[in-house]
Amino acid sequence: MSALVVAIDAMSGDFGPHCIVPACVSSLAEIPSLHLVLVGQAPLLEELIARHPSVDRARLRIEHASDVIAMGERPAQTLRNKPDASMRVALELLQEGRVQACVSAGNTGALMALSRHILKTLPGIDRPAMVATIPTSRGICQLLDVGANVDCTAEQLYQFAVMGSVAAQALGMSRPRVALLNVGTEDIKGNQRVRMAASLLQRATALNYIGFIEGDGVYRGLADVVVCDGFVGNVLVKSSEGLVAMINGEIKAQFGRNIGARLVGALALPFFRRLKTELRSGAYNGASFLGLQGIVVKCHGASGPKEFQGAIRRALAEIQQNMPQRLHGRLEGFLTNH
Amino acid sequence: MSALVVAIDAMSGDFGPHCIVPACVSSLAEIPSLHLVLVGQAPLLEELIARHPSVDRARLRIEHASDVIAMGERPAQTLRNKPDASMRVALELLQEGRVQACVSAGNTGALMALSRHILKTLPGIDRPAMVATIPTSRGICQLLDVGANVDCTAEQLYQFAVMGSVAAQALGMSRPRVALLNVGTEDIKGNQRVRMAASLLQRATALNYIGFIEGDGVYRGLADVVVCDGFVGNVLVKSSEGLVAMINGEIKAQFGRNIGARLVGALALPFFRRLKTELRSGAYNGASFLGLQGIVVKCHGASGPKEFQGAIRRALAEIQQNMPQRLHGRLEGFLTNH
Repeated sequence: MSALVVAIDAMSGDFGPHCIVPACVSSLAEIPSLHLVLVGQAPLLEELIARHPSVDRARLRIEHASDVIAMGERPAQTLRNKPDASMRVALELLQEGRVQACVSAGNTGALMALSRHILKTLPGIDRPAMVATIPTSRGICQLLDVGANVDCTAEQLYQFAVMGSVAAQALGMSRPRVALLNVGTEDIKGNQRVRMAASLLQRATALNYIGFIEGDGVYRGLADVVVCDGFVGNVLVKSSEGLVAMINGEIKAQFGRNIGARLVGALALPFFRRLKTELRSGAYNGASFLGLQGIVVKCHGASGPKEFQGAIRRALAEIQQNMPQRLHGRLEGFLTNH
Repeated sequence: MSALVVAIDAMSGDFGPHCIVPACVSSLAEIPSLHLVLVGQAPLLEELIARHPSVDRARLRIEHASDVIAMGERPAQTLRNKPDASMRVALELLQEGRVQACVSAGNTGALMALSRHILKTLPGIDRPAMVATIPTSRGICQLLDVGANVDCTAEQLYQFAVMGSVAAQALGMSRPRVALLNVGTEDIKGNQRVRMAASLLQRATALNYIGFIEGDGVYRGLADVVVCDGFVGNVLVKSSEGLVAMINGEIKAQFGRNIGARLVGALALPFFRRLKTELRSGAYNGASFLGLQGIVVKCHGASGPKEFQGAIRRALAEIQQNMPQRLHGRLEGFLTNH
């Protein structure tokens, strides 16, 4: 296997390099063909790496970047005022072809703005979409957008449907069922945007568009690709994560009371832990930006090391799937013939 | 206790009177002060009631209405073309003061349009909101809107916040924490509508506005009232219900495998059944329309008899809380001083 090189925005996320460096060290140990470029303040990164003497430094390089983009900064400002921010430098490495993907747990809006500015979108794509893989009762579902685009036009929802379908095909599905998230399944339901997107999709014969889907249908596994604007998708994934955490907490509280109940808890909790991880990894961590001329994976700011590792794995999968090229090849037919 | 009289749109919902009549019979048995007026096709309703010979007919009256509004009908058409629809006749009974509340499992859009047309909104309210009570890890939360208004202005979101706060106070909370649902908690996050609504709410000193909340914060119980547009709220409640159903299914599948696991299942399932009921009753059934000059409770179309009974209980609670008058009394101060 040839070398896989990923740039890491090492200063990003709520916990910054103190969380990201150990995640990178673990990923290097897990994946022998992986090379990482940690982008950020070199002295700090060197110090944190030194705590792991067994790490293979031949596969772990530091690229100095003096500045950091904060979580609350306005995307437009980060474009103008931070030429040496770790996020920007990591994306520039990708644009220059020195790495094959970029992973960040930073400010979503800034990552979106910088990615579009530095990498550019694929021809025919107005705005990239953040896609998450979520578990369903029948397998998995590609949900997009999950937060990069809080307002979307019908045309953008159409583009998301096309990109989601190609992404699902890359995962081995031959004819992914594509649905539009709505408040009901009847034609008259929803707002104008979603109804206009539906009429665009009905005409796209190359897509397996199955119509509207409601929130419960997502987890019932009625579609392989579910399309919505980033506000709705973000609320869906985050509320799901909150609900699982609540159930988890109640199970713990209920089943800690006596021996029988404790047994239940002991047996049930691993299941919940797994579900929580699946939801987090789909929802919060390792959501990728589709539609860029390059592979960018976004972790939730609150990611822990395990979730950051999940995002690195997601980036590797997209490198192996050759995602941007695959999308580029499929988009032309879809976006010109509708 | 004086008589409580509720009009039932008996032809509504996916299962119609075959589900609603048994629900009404059970509710009458459960609540001695309850009187019901079943609105719909009299011969059919008589036939279905005759299957319950023990029912107290002194408290169960039929009001004939020949027509039915289908789930896929356009609201505007139902306004013009169906003067004798069961939903409309039920709302007219309410408007005439012959009943104190109305319950329907019918077409949400039609119920909204007919309610506004027949009952009118309270002064200062542009559009009523559908509010659901959902469980959180710290208690309950009033979520609005959950599907009556798929597009909302900032001003409408502000009005929803005020109405939700009054509704939470009616449930005994002295200073309900009000939050706006968003994709992040930083000021710059979200779309223009939500940021404008935030600036309106920041100036409303009589409200306990605590800022933006993310999807996970809803179930973490960070607010008592969560405000969003009806598209987002509908997706939140329905996806939550789907997620719980999925977890329930997995628990059953996992824990059916051996004796130890079966024990777990037997102990865990009642918990999930309760949670599912709580979510369904909050989300799908018994969401009330706030902001009308009258009490209207909407059940999800797929409601079973138990959920329809829950909606009748919700209607009774609002009669006892004197909800429209309570809202009217509080709205004036809120809506003129901001």
